[in-house]
Amino acid sequence: MRAPTENPLAAGLPDLAADIITRVRCKHPRVHCLTNAVAQSFTANVLLAAGAVPSMTIAPEEIGEFVGRADALLINLGTLDNERREAAAIAIDAASAEQRPWVLDPVLVDRSRPRVEFAKALIARRPGIVRLNCAEFAAIAGIDCGRDALERCAIDRHCVIALTGATDTVTDGVRTASIENGDARMAQVTAMGCAGTALAAACLAVEADAWIASCAGLLAFAVAGERAAASARGPGSFAVEMLDALANLDGDTLRMHACVR
Amino acid sequence: MRAPTENPLAAGLPDLAADIITRVRCKHPRVHCLTNAVAQSFTANVLLAAGAVPSMTIAPEEIGEFVGRADALLINLGTLDNERREAAAIAIDAASAEQRPWVLDPVLVDRSRPRVEFAKALIARRPGIVRLNCAEFAAIAGIDCGRDALERCAIDRHCVIALTGATDTVTDGVRTASIENGDARMAQVTAMGCAGTALAAACLAVEADAWIASCAGLLAFAVAGERAAASARGPGSFAVEMLDALANLDGDTLRMHACVR
Amino acid sequence: MRAPTENPLAAGLPDLAADIITRVRCKHPRVHCLTNAVAQSFTANVLLAAGAVPSMTIAPEEIGEFVGRADALLINLGTLDNERREAAAIAIDAASAEQRPWVLDPVLVDRSRPRVEFAKALIARRPGIVRLNCAEFAAIAGIDCGRDALERCAIDRHCVIALTGATDTVTDGVRTASIENGDARMAQVTAMGCAGTALAAACLAVEADAWIASCAGLLAFAVAGERAAASARGPGSFAVEMLDALANLDGDTLRMHACVR
Repeated sequence: MRAPTENPLAAGLPDLAADIITRVRCKHPRVHCLTNAVAQSFTANVLLAAGAVPSMTIAPEEIGEFVGRADALLINLGTLDNERREAAAIAIDAASAEQRPWVLDPVLVDRSRPRVEFAKALIARRPGIVRLNCAEFAAIAGIDCGRDALERCAIDRHCVIALTGATDTVTDGVRTASIENGDARMAQVTAMGCAGTALAAACLAVEADAWIASCAGLLAFAVAGERAAASARGPGSFAVEMLDALANLDGDTLRMHACVR
Repeated sequence: MRAPTENPLAAGLPDLAADIITRVRCKHPRVHCLTNAVAQSFTANVLLAAGAVPSMTIAPEEIGEFVGRADALLINLGTLDNERREAAAIAIDAASAEQRPWVLDPVLVDRSRPRVEFAKALIARRPGIVRLNCAEFAAIAGIDCGRDALERCAIDRHCVIALTGATDTVTDGVRTASIENGDARMAQVTAMGCAGTALAAACLAVEADAWIASCAGLLAFAVAGERAAASARGPGSFAVEMLDALANLDGDTLRMHACVR
Repeated sequence: MRAPTENPLAAGLPDLAADIITRVRCKHPRVHCLTNAVAQSFTANVLLAAGAVPSMTIAPEEIGEFVGRADALLINLGTLDNERREAAAIAIDAASAEQRPWVLDPVLVDRSRPRVEFAKALIARRPGIVRLNCAEFAAIAGIDCGRDALERCAIDRHCVIALTGATDTVTDGVRTASIENGDARMAQVTAMGCAGTALAAACLAVEADAWIASCAGLLAFAVAGERAAASARGPGSFAVEMLDALANLDGDTLRMHACVR
């Protein structure tokens, strides 16, 4: 058992996360993923391991109908081709029309100028959660990723900012928590971060409070990563163990290992 | 050893399946797969594990030549974009011109109206096998998936209907068998069903009787699933074990575990 | 310890390979991969396991910027659609403008006539390394893959020819080495060869001598394949073990197991 946390909001998160992970496992929410070509398969497997039901089409002709019947939408900007740009607009229209929550993962916006402008335009359409790392945050917000900057950005954009790294920081501008779980091996498997954002979308499908949903998804993912690392012998077995750990994650394990401030 | 089956046709299927799996392993049939973006990699690995040789291009410029040199064709309607629609027409033309058998997997037609019409048009072009679940059958046939409905549909469309679920039912309208093997974990790995259809296509490449080929492919896949589940600790290790089990599947294992009525 | 090699150039390769693999692990070179849809995920995971940083977009709008910031470029001709054709030209322009080395993997050119012409045009643009098998070499060079033909082709095209098969042969026309490591199971996993070429590209990012870089990449990959095969139970576990073996490969293992002539 790790030391108790001091942030009173943070103290309740392990229990909330345990409850939300159970809800995902029982309600089987549908999560439509408009994600990059590299991440599609692993993302679908992470959602299935957690009990959610993924659909993955990016075809503009189809995506509106899929999103309309889904419980949450994920938009990931990796491998951002014209088809994905067109599909993103249709998907967000459908999510807005049906009042479905959606999550944005602006992958590598720091490496591609066209992605930055596109990401900013999408953020103006009010995602519930934006998940990114420090470099991606700086590219979008034009400012370094200190806690104040994250909180101001969350307030200005009316969304939860979930910054991932060695420590994850999740803020809606008013409530802020830091998650110190996870393992360095998570960076050695492609699409690991993308799949973690998908899990946050699954949590958002069953929990209306986007800050709690973000914290729950990232915490469960990070604790599963630690469990997986304990039995992995390298990045290949780590990816396999990660899916097993997510499927087998229970409330006791979450509460026992959660390190949230 | 399970109890002997009563359906005399079914009784012979484990031996036939063992023979067909051996033929796939020896003849290395080429199976061209026009399948969805999520399933491409796992489908190729399932075919390789079984001894078949996959090719996976969906480019309309290339697919005709690949199909012309293949021994069977798989068309899967997941992530159905315009490129895949165009490629499907070219691929079926090439298969028809070269008299190559083909198999249709109308994934999630129940979730996307454009897919239903497209699937119906493809079925009119005479696939050897249509593999689907109850919801997909209902969307295409406009009737629930009882045994009579399946048999009528098989006769009307001149194809084998392979309905998968907790129990698989395979019918050509005259001969009908039920396969009770498999494991619930198969639904926890993305593209598992898609890959099973690809194995049926590999069987159809070495066995002209589409009903026997369907039964053999689904039976071998389901028995491999049971073997994999016996040593898996979650969906990640299950997917790995599934490929190992398929590669190591032998006639004795098939006959010992087959549960066909 | 295997018998010492007789080719004096070959004798130094295990040490060079150990050094280059260490450089990849320390320098984390960026490798942009324009590769086929089936290979994207496994290729990214192989590069990450070796310590390199993959990026994988094929969008013509983005690829120039990604290549301009990368340390090496891989172009693989599998699933060669119009988008990939267009992106290849842009990517090579960017690599040439920034003097970044690039590697060509003309997958299955023997099975698709449009690919042959396209591959020839790309080779005229001076890749550092062309990796192919015998059938692919014959389709491009119009001659069987004997050692003389390989050496002449390397001189004529001003590139390293890396021919892979049961034995790998690497030549720049003047220096030629044969690598006898590897395992038959490598052919049972989709994208294994594609990923090996990506590792050669990562080596070329940290080693300017393309012949040495090719030898190092193929040798490290083949030795990792032997290590993986030692603990695999089938093609599923082999793919997992391969990533673990690559991440854990050290100089002693390379030198102990290398079989180069």
